[in-house]
Amino acid sequence: MSDVLIIGTIALDTIETPFGKVGRALGGSATYAAFAASFFSRPAVVSIIGNDFPEEYIGLMKKRGISLDGVKAAGRTFHWDGFYEYDMNEAKTRKTELNSLEGFKAKVPQKYRNAGYVFLANIDPEQQIAALKQISKPELVVLDTMNFWINHKRKQLVAAIKNADVLLLNDGEARQLFSTISLVKAANSAISLGPKAVIIKKGEHGALLFTKNKHFNAPGYPLENIKDPTGCGDSFGGAFIGYLAKTKDLSEPNIRKAVIYGSVVASHNAEDFSLNRLKSLTISDIEKRYKEFQDIREF
Amino acid sequence: MSDVLIIGTIALDTIETPFGKVGRALGGSATYAAFAASFFSRPAVVSIIGNDFPEEYIGLMKKRGISLDGVKAAGRTFHWDGFYEYDMNEAKTRKTELNSLEGFKAKVPQKYRNAGYVFLANIDPEQQIAALKQISKPELVVLDTMNFWINHKRKQLVAAIKNADVLLLNDGEARQLFSTISLVKAANSAISLGPKAVIIKKGEHGALLFTKNKHFNAPGYPLENIKDPTGCGDSFGGAFIGYLAKTKDLSEPNIRKAVIYGSVVASHNAEDFSLNRLKSLTISDIEKRYKEFQDIREF
Repeated sequence: MSDVLIIGTIALDTIETPFGKVGRALGGSATYAAFAASFFSRPAVVSIIGNDFPEEYIGLMKKRGISLDGVKAAGRTFHWDGFYEYDMNEAKTRKTELNSLEGFKAKVPQKYRNAGYVFLANIDPEQQIAALKQISKPELVVLDTMNFWINHKRKQLVAAIKNADVLLLNDGEARQLFSTISLVKAANSAISLGPKAVIIKKGEHGALLFTKNKHFNAPGYPLENIKDPTGCGDSFGGAFIGYLAKTKDLSEPNIRKAVIYGSVVASHNAEDFSLNRLKSLTISDIEKRYKEFQDIREF
Repeated sequence: MSDVLIIGTIALDTIETPFGKVGRALGGSATYAAFAASFFSRPAVVSIIGNDFPEEYIGLMKKRGISLDGVKAAGRTFHWDGFYEYDMNEAKTRKTELNSLEGFKAKVPQKYRNAGYVFLANIDPEQQIAALKQISKPELVVLDTMNFWINHKRKQLVAAIKNADVLLLNDGEARQLFSTISLVKAANSAISLGPKAVIIKKGEHGALLFTKNKHFNAPGYPLENIKDPTGCGDSFGGAFIGYLAKTKDLSEPNIRKAVIYGSVVASHNAEDFSLNRLKSLTISDIEKRYKEFQDIREF
């Protein structure tokens, strides 16, 4: 029985970084999120793939206990082709082929409609809203997004945010969406829309958690070798909600722990291309790095 | 009797930020550092001013217990005219009038030559080296610098770093000086030159402390209103060495505390122009924010 429902994309990614490249590798916001959540809970995905989607990738997801009954197949799989230069914080797009994603209408299978923990991973905010309407009474709704939706569907995105309990976005997106240089002001604006918590992801600089009158500063992990940051934000979100679904404790101190677990899994994800690191990651790797996060913060 | 000797600049600063402007206000690396150090210890400054330097500013420094016997006067005072746009991490220079700083030869008065704690604040690395040669056997030498010296006196700067125990620099400078995108690699390169510790200052993102095989991540303080970041790095350095001189404990855990005190004073400094905030700051303000730094990173 699944306990985290994830709405997002499943993609084939062609990625080049200063440290290598991969072609049509497994990717997508729901994929990274589900892998990351699977270390703590039993995720189910609502998404769409194409008829060209490799069986091998289906097998990889099933092996992680990810339920795929909400994944339809039609046409060709969404394909993103992008690259990173030395500033690994910024993905640059060469080509986006939406393919079957273009006509995607989120349909939540009956058996997932009483899901308690819902992650609206990065996808068109109209589909985030549509999916959420089909879920009866979730305990926690976490929403992630990206600059593309701020630019092209701002109104729909704001409507989606109003229905979320936790908003995830990166620092540039927070500044852009709330038209302020101050992340504190951006977080306050976000909270005034409805969410009880806002998490601002800052890549190598860690993450900030803002709740009403409380602030938490999660460190960035000092990675010596970053190969590919693709999917780090999605992995963060997946591990974050996976840990909360496992512990069923939505207190602020436990949300801080979930932020650290999110950071731990995201930092591992950057160590290799595609899902390569998350495929081999173990819970003991995660616990070991969680302790390191404690050590680097002690004073 | 002074216990921290600071070599650096005393300046008149004309500064414009999106939040206001000041003309020929008190500034300079040694000034900020000495004010910040004065909350913990008794700093003395070696520097140069001009005959135009306002008596009022001398009075302000003396009031903070800063010893100025190593400050000579000649010609006109060093004047920096700069501005910040919305990215407050980057100072832009309109005009630099070196004036009396141009012919400055660091001369350490006899009574300071057995100083235990020495801060080579941002100034020409040749003068950092010259000053250090006049000091008999310091217990701790902390060195700060800026991109200008990396660009124009790299060789002399590297020579100066070899004589420092603690190197301070910001993230961009660390990447530039050691030709790597990875701050971990940059820190390792710095340590291989001689320093036992490297502190990478990241503005709103906090600071990283690297010692051999140890890493500490100091949070950034979530300031809602930043008025002027000028002197934050210098204030950080001054408070850092001031706290170490006060506690006389150079263990890694105590250096972590010094990093937090540096961050606390620097975060206050950004709240107003010039030395305006540090002028009115109290030790109880500092201790209060130190506790906030503990709260925001607890998990």
